[in-house]
Amino acid sequence: MEPVNIIGVGMTKFGILDDSILELAKNAVFEAMEDSSTIGAQFDHLFVGTQNPDEFVSRGHLSTVLVDVLGLVPAGATRVETGPSSGSSAFEAAFTVVAAGMADLVLVIGVEKMSEVDRGTASRILAKMMSFENESRYGATPTALAAMIARRYMHDYGLTRDELSLVPVKAHRNGAKNPLAHFQKEITIEQVNTARTVADPLTLYDCCPTSDGASAVVVASDRAVKEHGLADRAIRVLGIGHGTDYLAVQHRLSLTSMNATVVAAEKAFKMARVGPQDIDVCEVHDAFSILELVNMEDIGLVNRGEAIKAVREGLTEVSGSMPVNTTGGIKARGHPTGATGVAQIRDIVMQLRSEAPKGLQVDVPNIGLTHNIGGFGNNIVVGIFQRR
Amino acid sequence: MEPVNIIGVGMTKFGILDDSILELAKNAVFEAMEDSSTIGAQFDHLFVGTQNPDEFVSRGHLSTVLVDVLGLVPAGATRVETGPSSGSSAFEAAFTVVAAGMADLVLVIGVEKMSEVDRGTASRILAKMMSFENESRYGATPTALAAMIARRYMHDYGLTRDELSLVPVKAHRNGAKNPLAHFQKEITIEQVNTARTVADPLTLYDCCPTSDGASAVVVASDRAVKEHGLADRAIRVLGIGHGTDYLAVQHRLSLTSMNATVVAAEKAFKMARVGPQDIDVCEVHDAFSILELVNMEDIGLVNRGEAIKAVREGLTEVSGSMPVNTTGGIKARGHPTGATGVAQIRDIVMQLRSEAPKGLQVDVPNIGLTHNIGGFGNNIVVGIFQRR
Repeated sequence: MEPVNIIGVGMTKFGILDDSILELAKNAVFEAMEDSSTIGAQFDHLFVGTQNPDEFVSRGHLSTVLVDVLGLVPAGATRVETGPSSGSSAFEAAFTVVAAGMADLVLVIGVEKMSEVDRGTASRILAKMMSFENESRYGATPTALAAMIARRYMHDYGLTRDELSLVPVKAHRNGAKNPLAHFQKEITIEQVNTARTVADPLTLYDCCPTSDGASAVVVASDRAVKEHGLADRAIRVLGIGHGTDYLAVQHRLSLTSMNATVVAAEKAFKMARVGPQDIDVCEVHDAFSILELVNMEDIGLVNRGEAIKAVREGLTEVSGSMPVNTTGGIKARGHPTGATGVAQIRDIVMQLRSEAPKGLQVDVPNIGLTHNIGGFGNNIVVGIFQRR
Repeated sequence: MEPVNIIGVGMTKFGILDDSILELAKNAVFEAMEDSSTIGAQFDHLFVGTQNPDEFVSRGHLSTVLVDVLGLVPAGATRVETGPSSGSSAFEAAFTVVAAGMADLVLVIGVEKMSEVDRGTASRILAKMMSFENESRYGATPTALAAMIARRYMHDYGLTRDELSLVPVKAHRNGAKNPLAHFQKEITIEQVNTARTVADPLTLYDCCPTSDGASAVVVASDRAVKEHGLADRAIRVLGIGHGTDYLAVQHRLSLTSMNATVVAAEKAFKMARVGPQDIDVCEVHDAFSILELVNMEDIGLVNRGEAIKAVREGLTEVSGSMPVNTTGGIKARGHPTGATGVAQIRDIVMQLRSEAPKGLQVDVPNIGLTHNIGGFGNNIVVGIFQRR
C-alpha cells in the first residue's frame, strides 16, 4: 500500500443556508484547493459523499455534475453512499485509490442540503436508514431507537438524566466557539432536562439538527505531497476501517454497544498500528447524546460503562486528557448527513495542524480519530490521522 | 498493486420482472456464490452499484440492507453511483480495494428495478442524467441527444438508415439466443426502419428498453483464488479506466466521439498493457444503436468513420473477427441501469470461460473488454479481462 496524505481541507458553515447544493460543494472545494494550492485539472479522481440529493433537492448524478462544475473533467468521478456515513465512505474510496497507487491527487466532497424539503419529507427520507419490516412500520424513529439505548444504558450503568445532559452541554460549549457550527450558543443542564421530550428520556437538546453544508479534503500520494511542496503541512492517514451490523437494532447482540464501531475501529487501529491510548483528539458520531458515550466505549477510549465518568471528570473537554468533539460534534456543529464524515476529517486535520478555532485547539495533538455512523449504527467508518 | 481476479459470476434474467429489488440482488448473488464456492461470512467488503432505488422503488441504503440480507455482516458495505455506469463503478471500487491489498474477497452487485414506476416517472428520473440548464428544460431527452449524434454521424461519414439498422438487427439476433435477455426475438431491417419514430432518425428499435435485473461478481486477490482452489477458473482483471466529460453535449468538442470513452479506454489499456488490437470480444454500451458505432471508434477497435464498415462486413458478429455485444448488448439483453455494468463483466467472464450460451460463444477468446456509459456520455468506465 502506498502512503496516503491529506494536503488541503475546506468547509462551509453548517446550518440552514441559502446556497444551493452545488454552491455549497463549490465553496468547500475552492477553499480546499486554495489550502492545497491545487487546481481542478490536476486531480485524478473525484469522490462525492452524499446521502440523498435525489430526494432532498431533486438533483441526481452529483459526481457527474460536480466533475464538470469544478473543472475536473476528464477525471473519474464517483458518488459514494452509505447513508449518513457517506462522507467517510467517499474518503475511504479516495484513500483506497491512492493506497493502490492508481491515483496521486484525489478530491473528496461531502455535501447535503436538507432544508429544502419540509420536516415530514425529511423524516420520511431519513427513516429509510431503519428496517421497515422491524422498525419504521411500527412507528419507530431514529430518536426512539436512541431512547431505547439511553434507557438500557441508564439501567445497566446507572447513568442519570443530569449526567447525560453534560454531553450536549459540552457540545454546545464547544460549538459556541466554532464559527462554522450550526448552533453557536451555550446551554445549561436545566435547559436540556426541561426541553420538549422527543422520545423519553431524550429531549430536543439530546438530538442533532438536520443541516445544510459541505466539506472537502484533498487526498494525495507522497509523490503529490512532494510535488506541491506541502510536506510540512501534510497530514498522514494512518488507517481506515469500515464495519456493518444487522439493519434492525433488535437483531443485534447489545443495545449499549454498536458492533459495527468495534469492527471498524479494530480494522483502523490494526492498519494504523496504534491503539485507543494513542488518540489525542477525536470526532465521534453524536447524532444523539447517548451515542457519544457508547461510541467512546466501542472505540476503546474508556472501559464499558465508564464513558460518563470521563465526561463528569472533564476528560472529554478541549483541555481534558481525552478531548471528544471539540468542534461541537454533530450535536452543535450540525449534521448535513453526507457532509458530516468529511467535516470530521477536516476538523481533525485542523487540530493536527494546530489551526482549530480559538478556545478549541487541543495542546499539540499528534494522532486524531474520526468515527461516522451511517444508518442507525449499521454502517460505520473510522479513520486515524497523524501529524507527519 | 496486487493482482485482481474474478472467481464467480451470477445474473438474473433481465426484463419486466415480478421479483423485488432485494430478491433480484439475492438471486444474482447466490448464483455468484455458488459459482465461486463462497459464503457470505468470507467476504471483506460489499459494493452495490445502483442508480436510483430511492425513487424507482422507494428503497434507500441498499448496501446497508443487502449486507445484512446476504449474511455479510460485519463486512464493510458501500453503495456506488455514477448513473447507468453504477455497476461498473462498483466493480472499479472492488478492484481498487483488492489492488490496494486491503481486501481478499469482495462482492459486487449491480441491480435496478425500473418497472414499478410509470413511464413518465421513469423518464423524469432518467432525465437527471442530462444538463437541466442546457438540455432537459428545452425538452431534450436521451433519445433526442442520440438522434443528434446519429444525424451528425450520417452527415460526416455517409451512414445510411439501412446500415444503422444492421446494429439492432444483430443485437436482436444475439439476444434471441441469450436466455437471460430482455428481448429474445429476431427483428428485420424493415422492422427497424418502419417502427415508430422516437427522435428522428431513431426509431423504437434503435433504443434500449428499461428493465429490471441484477448481476453479481466475486472479486478476489491471488491469495483468495488459491485458497478457494479456483486458479483454473479465475479470470484476471488486467485493467480498468474511468473518464468523464462535460455534462451538456453542446459543451463537448465533438458529437460523434465521446471523450470520456477515449480517456477511460486509454487508462484501461495502459494499466492492462494491451491495445485495442488485442481485444477478442467486447460488450459496449449500445443504449442507442448509433452509440455502438461511436463506442467502437472511441475505444480504438476501428478507425473514425469505419465502424459501420465492420458491421456491414459481419466483423462484429459472434463469428466475426471483432465480436461486439454477443449477448444482445443493452439493446436486447436489456438495461436495468445499475445492473448493466456488472452484467457486461459477467458476460465477458462467461465468454473467457467458454461458457457463453449456445450460438453465442466466440472461438476461445483470450482478452475481453467492457464499456459502460453513465449519463449521456459523461461518466464512463472501461474494463479489460483475461483468461489466466
